[in-house]
Amino acid sequence: MKMFNKVVIIGTGLIGGSLGLVLKQKGLAGQVIGLSRHLKNARLAKQAGAIDQVGTSLEVVEDADLIILATPVNVIISMASQIAKRIKKDCLVIDVGSSKELIVAGLTRLLPNFLGCHPLAGSEKKGIINSTGNIFKDSVCIITPTVKTKIQTLSKIKMLWKKIGAQVVLLSAKEHDKALAFTSHLPHVLAFSLISSIPEGYLSLSSSGLKDTTRIAGSDAQLWSEIFLSNRVNLLATLRIFQKQLAILKFALKNKNKPQLIRLLLLANAQRNKL
Amino acid sequence: MKMFNKVVIIGTGLIGGSLGLVLKQKGLAGQVIGLSRHLKNARLAKQAGAIDQVGTSLEVVEDADLIILATPVNVIISMASQIAKRIKKDCLVIDVGSSKELIVAGLTRLLPNFLGCHPLAGSEKKGIINSTGNIFKDSVCIITPTVKTKIQTLSKIKMLWKKIGAQVVLLSAKEHDKALAFTSHLPHVLAFSLISSIPEGYLSLSSSGLKDTTRIAGSDAQLWSEIFLSNRVNLLATLRIFQKQLAILKFALKNKNKPQLIRLLLLANAQRNKL
Repeated sequence: MKMFNKVVIIGTGLIGGSLGLVLKQKGLAGQVIGLSRHLKNARLAKQAGAIDQVGTSLEVVEDADLIILATPVNVIISMASQIAKRIKKDCLVIDVGSSKELIVAGLTRLLPNFLGCHPLAGSEKKGIINSTGNIFKDSVCIITPTVKTKIQTLSKIKMLWKKIGAQVVLLSAKEHDKALAFTSHLPHVLAFSLISSIPEGYLSLSSSGLKDTTRIAGSDAQLWSEIFLSNRVNLLATLRIFQKQLAILKFALKNKNKPQLIRLLLLANAQRNKL
Repeated sequence: MKMFNKVVIIGTGLIGGSLGLVLKQKGLAGQVIGLSRHLKNARLAKQAGAIDQVGTSLEVVEDADLIILATPVNVIISMASQIAKRIKKDCLVIDVGSSKELIVAGLTRLLPNFLGCHPLAGSEKKGIINSTGNIFKDSVCIITPTVKTKIQTLSKIKMLWKKIGAQVVLLSAKEHDKALAFTSHLPHVLAFSLISSIPEGYLSLSSSGLKDTTRIAGSDAQLWSEIFLSNRVNLLATLRIFQKQLAILKFALKNKNKPQLIRLLLLANAQRNKL
């Protein structure tokens, strides 16, 4: 079932490392090389069996068949320009960043066989040590082709994600960023703001409700600042919509309007049931 | 280890039913009677082994040693006036409502041996069928005595919760409601508002982040409308604080102020780690 002779994963954190693990487990790659700005992370990935070898310089990309860019959003863009001139003509390149418009616009220009991907997997915890094996099984992976994407690139990458266990959804980068602003970036902004609103002395007087609503407030600050900034306009728009929704509930509460409160909560119940 | 001969639980849902289960499992009650406005719920509680007998009228409270009021907040208050003239002089009465000031003020006047309790347990799911046995084990139970609370009442109820596995925290009803507005009622308002903000078509493009942040948006609409209204002033105050916090993050995002964004997210990380 080998799909690629040599795969290079740049960024061997939770997502990059977990991809390496699954590629190796499923025998989809002849060889997996891991590169990281932090040598320690790449070494941990090797120890975890996620990569065969720790790469020591970008030269390792030269004979790669697939390159997976799994670094923070801003690093993906700068990394692409560094690998563009080194790679083989037919080398496929994918990224796994959480926002897509900036990345797809930048990388499509630089790399003829690039395809933007966003596996909706992962957690608030960083690093390969937090991988539980195949975190992609039964997950959704959004793929964002452009008019320039070659059919062969698209079909091979689609097959890759399917073999890994993900359900593939195709969206434009623009539509992806609009959707994810709502379903991922907004919940993160709210979780960060919620936990910061609570007086420290009250934290012990909480139960699973607060724990679950703020789990993702443990997410990496640097990584998420980059994601927020890279999807800034959409995120600001979703924040306005959320604030309107909150104002409606607040208005009902202020006015002791119980029938309206119940109606709003029932609508929320129904929407939550669709998740 | 029997602490009470006859216990009557009014409201045999998730909390009331689970209390019955644990009282019986631990042999803390000679007999447990369950009463519910919905006969079906009481019957389910009997089937689940949470009560020995389904009560058919309020007369069952007449020789009770402990009465547990486990109905929605507004029903607790009306129920108290109905039982006040029927119970024995030394019968202990506790409630398990999510807000305390209104309940404690009302019930202290009516019932000489009343003590307000709030076990921080439960879930967004209703009914005894969603009980996983001892949901109180390793939970926190807040008890809200007043100057009128008798020492014997307080020590017996403290012992009850400890035997059930909960860690007991004493607070005034006022302080309870201030704290829970932050740690429970605010997260619920945000979860309801968040899920309602998301266009339906995007719901499938989500992962565990949205699921966890909105789990409690599945909570019962009637029950939570009552809780919000019963703690309205505190909840509106916490909402203002949350909105300020959100505005700070939004301002940093609007101004592409990355150092400030990172700083805010790091503070949130640190606060989340204390949970």
